[in-house]
Amino acid sequence: MTDANRVWRLRKRPVGAIADDVLSFATEPVPEPGEGQFLVRLNYLSLDPTNRIWMSDMEQYMPPVALGEAMRGAVCGTVVKSRVPGFSAGDVVSGLGTWADYQLATPATHSKMIPVEGISVAEAFGLFAIVGPTAYFGLLEVGTPKAGETVVVSGAAGAVGSLVGQIARLQGCRAVGIAGSQAKCRWLVEDLGFDAAVNYKAEALGGALKRACPGGIDVYFDNVGGAILEACLEHMNLGGRVPTCGLISQYNATGATPGPRNYGMLLMKRLTVRGFLVSDYASRRGEAIGALAEWMRQGKLQFRLDVREGLENALTTLRLLFTGENTGKLLLHVA
Amino acid sequence: MTDANRVWRLRKRPVGAIADDVLSFATEPVPEPGEGQFLVRLNYLSLDPTNRIWMSDMEQYMPPVALGEAMRGAVCGTVVKSRVPGFSAGDVVSGLGTWADYQLATPATHSKMIPVEGISVAEAFGLFAIVGPTAYFGLLEVGTPKAGETVVVSGAAGAVGSLVGQIARLQGCRAVGIAGSQAKCRWLVEDLGFDAAVNYKAEALGGALKRACPGGIDVYFDNVGGAILEACLEHMNLGGRVPTCGLISQYNATGATPGPRNYGMLLMKRLTVRGFLVSDYASRRGEAIGALAEWMRQGKLQFRLDVREGLENALTTLRLLFTGENTGKLLLHVA
Repeated sequence: MTDANRVWRLRKRPVGAIADDVLSFATEPVPEPGEGQFLVRLNYLSLDPTNRIWMSDMEQYMPPVALGEAMRGAVCGTVVKSRVPGFSAGDVVSGLGTWADYQLATPATHSKMIPVEGISVAEAFGLFAIVGPTAYFGLLEVGTPKAGETVVVSGAAGAVGSLVGQIARLQGCRAVGIAGSQAKCRWLVEDLGFDAAVNYKAEALGGALKRACPGGIDVYFDNVGGAILEACLEHMNLGGRVPTCGLISQYNATGATPGPRNYGMLLMKRLTVRGFLVSDYASRRGEAIGALAEWMRQGKLQFRLDVREGLENALTTLRLLFTGENTGKLLLHVA
Repeated sequence: MTDANRVWRLRKRPVGAIADDVLSFATEPVPEPGEGQFLVRLNYLSLDPTNRIWMSDMEQYMPPVALGEAMRGAVCGTVVKSRVPGFSAGDVVSGLGTWADYQLATPATHSKMIPVEGISVAEAFGLFAIVGPTAYFGLLEVGTPKAGETVVVSGAAGAVGSLVGQIARLQGCRAVGIAGSQAKCRWLVEDLGFDAAVNYKAEALGGALKRACPGGIDVYFDNVGGAILEACLEHMNLGGRVPTCGLISQYNATGATPGPRNYGMLLMKRLTVRGFLVSDYASRRGEAIGALAEWMRQGKLQFRLDVREGLENALTTLRLLFTGENTGKLLLHVA
């Protein structure tokens, strides 16, 4: 441990794509934990589409990061000093922290990570902290897929999407992924066992979905919104469900973006569109972790980490989510 | 009974508002019932927003009316000749028929109306055939309102909307109606017992909804879509529900209309938007009729018929739904 603490702070609200000057990156003193706090050394920082939401002041599901505040992120780290009974130096914790080498935490924001046999800390953090429970509850509780149904997921080569398709297969469903390159599509079908994959950058989505989903779409797990949502609504079956997990195509928009032009499909096909957040299922997180870990041990679930290096690269790395350059769960390894 | 049978037939698909030449109106011979059919004399024709959908070839929930076919409508009539055991001259029936003085029917399309004590045939047809069960199941099953919650309904002075607000009150909810004139708003509050009403033609909807719904909106029963949907999404509470019953603001549109610009609210507020049709609850129709009739008898539910005269006025009368000139359930009295 040194005295140097590098901290990313929000300088201004992004307009459009995240520019370099939206955050500042400077060295500050390492803070001292007060009573009821412990100091955490950052090991892994999770980079997620929702980071872009927190930077903005759009209407959102929790307060945005205030200007001047350290940037918020899901973190995994090691306790180095503690003034909280039950937390000691060396404990590995995860929670909602900041983009900083060292950060103060409390038992309300961070909890000890429970070691899972055969699964590394990075995997456990990447899989269990957010994206695993998101895919699990979003698909099973919001999408309610039945065996034999067709599940389509966008952002399919992303962390949540790749899990959604595999869990759909485990439920006896046909799993179809939408992704942005041939390499991603091959990975989905050849490695992860998706029944089909559509490269939305290379194919006209309407025809491609028709071919990939000859029986129509029963569940469309939406990570992106926009034109892909429209194309999927067009192919939904009567009584279909649209769990809405993310709308990444809109996060960089500079004004209000129109909703789907075929919104009327909701009525004609009696669809259920439902937004959700993983925190809605916080009390049942253990159930998801248990199921995901068991599938991993049985070799039925693959999970790819995309680990980049260095806190100084946090902003550049975050942008990969918006250009589609990552495959799997994007993490930054810090120490 | 005469030999003259006036029949409205679909000549062409409407573009925009329903023009005069979309339908033809001519006299034809009265048809003879074949084996398994009976002949019905039209007494009341129900005029509904969905008539506009059936005239078009937009993607819809049942086949559109084919060009040259008699226009489809919900009808109430009297059997004049029957070749079906169990149906006799004089029986009063209702079902999905046509805009014609005389029409052939079968037990699959028409059923005998069960007399309800203290309720006229016109009221029973207007209330129980479509709009009553639509309001009942749409609000209670799709909207799932809880006592103390705020329910907002658009098209509130229409047949379905006026029932939705009253049923919401009967569930212990705050009921707020959106309608297009001061007279309608007064009727909702003073006669039907709505807690508040907003005249969307006279007030800025955002501020008016904020005043009328100080605790936000828990259920928005959507009959109209468009700008009113957007304004309501803005004021929804976390976990709110949006039963989607109609999108009348879009039926006359000549191209695809954009969905709500604040579609992202579905995610941020974890809303459930669900389209439904009354036919989804066909097997439970008796339950709705029983509850509605009981509320009527107890004086807890008011239902206004807007009855116009003459089959020759069917097209002109249908247009009232799109200009907002009707109040309550629009019926045409024919014979």
